Amino acid sequence: MRSSKRINEVMDKLYVIKIGGNIVDNEAALSDFLDLFAAVPGKKILVHGGGKVATRLAADLNIKQQLVDGRRITDAETLKVVTMVYAGLINKQIVAALQSKGSNVLGISGADGNIIQAHKRIHPTMDYGFVGDVDFVNSTMLSAVLGLGLNVVVAPITHDNKGQLLNTNADTIAQEIATAMSKLYNVDLIYSFEKAGVLMDAEDDNTVIKVIDPTTYKSLRDRQLIFAGMIPKLDNAFAALRSGVSKVIIGHGAQLPLLISGAAGTTIIDAA
Amino acid sequence: MRSSKRINEVMDKLYVIKIGGNIVDNEAALSDFLDLFAAVPGKKILVHGGGKVATRLAADLNIKQQLVDGRRITDAETLKVVTMVYAGLINKQIVAALQSKGSNVLGISGADGNIIQAHKRIHPTMDYGFVGDVDFVNSTMLSAVLGLGLNVVVAPITHDNKGQLLNTNADTIAQEIATAMSKLYNVDLIYSFEKAGVLMDAEDDNTVIKVIDPTTYKSLRDRQLIFAGMIPKLDNAFAALRSGVSKVIIGHGAQLPLLISGAAGTTIIDAA
Repeated sequence: MRSSKRINEVMDKLYVIKIGGNIVDNEAALSDFLDLFAAVPGKKILVHGGGKVATRLAADLNIKQQLVDGRRITDAETLKVVTMVYAGLINKQIVAALQSKGSNVLGISGADGNIIQAHKRIHPTMDYGFVGDVDFVNSTMLSAVLGLGLNVVVAPITHDNKGQLLNTNADTIAQEIATAMSKLYNVDLIYSFEKAGVLMDAEDDNTVIKVIDPTTYKSLRDRQLIFAGMIPKLDNAFAALRSGVSKVIIGHGAQLPLLISGAAGTTIIDAA
Repeated sequence: MRSSKRINEVMDKLYVIKIGGNIVDNEAALSDFLDLFAAVPGKKILVHGGGKVATRLAADLNIKQQLVDGRRITDAETLKVVTMVYAGLINKQIVAALQSKGSNVLGISGADGNIIQAHKRIHPTMDYGFVGDVDFVNSTMLSAVLGLGLNVVVAPITHDNKGQLLNTNADTIAQEIATAMSKLYNVDLIYSFEKAGVLMDAEDDNTVIKVIDPTTYKSLRDRQLIFAGMIPKLDNAFAALRSGVSKVIIGHGAQLPLLISGAAGTTIIDAA
């Protein structure tokens, strides 16, 4: 433990920050968030979700959203829509905004520089369409890009290295990037969204759980005190910590500097 | 002249290659072209036009294309469409295809890395909307990206560094990149499209003019032997040559290796 801490101290800090769709959808909230992101010192990677723009565009184009067991299927036409909206419109709007705020960033999809390679999801009974599960993140190339003085803005589109683009969950991309980059950097992974953190009462932002470690997580889960939708996020967070990520922080995008300093949000640590 | 030739010989070769919309629109022709592009040795930058996908998407979304004096106006909604189609769909489809063909490429807009900064077109009598005229190409950053072993695929979208994306002519982007990069590389600029070169008879691909220098250009123009639409392209070509580009080649995308070797197409040289 002490030796791994010593390694972290000599490694450069890297922040991998995910912003959720609700911030992306709100022009004023997004601009405020990007001001905060631009002000984060040092190396940083922003992973953005899609928001409702793709859903609205698909509706305007009369592309039916297929749902199977409540999960959205990415058919060929939907893949075009999400590629246009995520890798085109949202990514470039964020990049242009950050440039204007003095942060020199490069916007990418996983296909660019072969930075995130994935495969079409394999499932025993259903076909999710063009949905990608991540095979690897090219941490060497991503680090080389950061080495040019560029921060990186990642759209949740990957590829299979056989010419196929794939729609990929942005939370997963953030986690995979954080994990892969933890070989080279002291990585904090921050999930920012429209809630103040992991809440005891999902409707009350004043019930933030400040710190969750494996023991408190087990206890909270056993007593069913954690909102069900948060469980996969927390499982992913602990997986990231076990793979070398220093800290995972969950909280409100408008509090980004406080999330980083530990003064707000929920910090998830692997106390083992 | 001898000394500038000597400088060119010690500089790395760089190919800046523009592909026109008609190739982008045809899936089979595009795939064949990308096979040829992937096989071009050394450093290379591909600039792609938009093709008809953006026009079709705008029509499907009932976004009216405003034309003033025969020129298309890029209003706010049209800017969203071209950003989605050029920087999203087409750019990422090309990037994914090139990855599958073994060419590691990075797809960018001009906003990425602040590589192409532009301003909204200023015109005494009309407002073109969100159309950008290029201020500069950041050759240092672009060269640093090439230095990572990445070739670059450029979508014709720029930004003004104040947060505004701008729609910019792809021919102009190719020329501006070639000119800026000629300080660092021995640059050949190749305009590939669906014709065999500059033609004496616009309808007959067997009438390619092999070489045009300023003297032959003047003579051809005086005798009105050059198709009017080609004149701005040739004026731009000579401007690029005078700014340091080694060669400008115009020809059919399907003949890319022959364009590079000089065995096909029209080569434009500044004999002065």
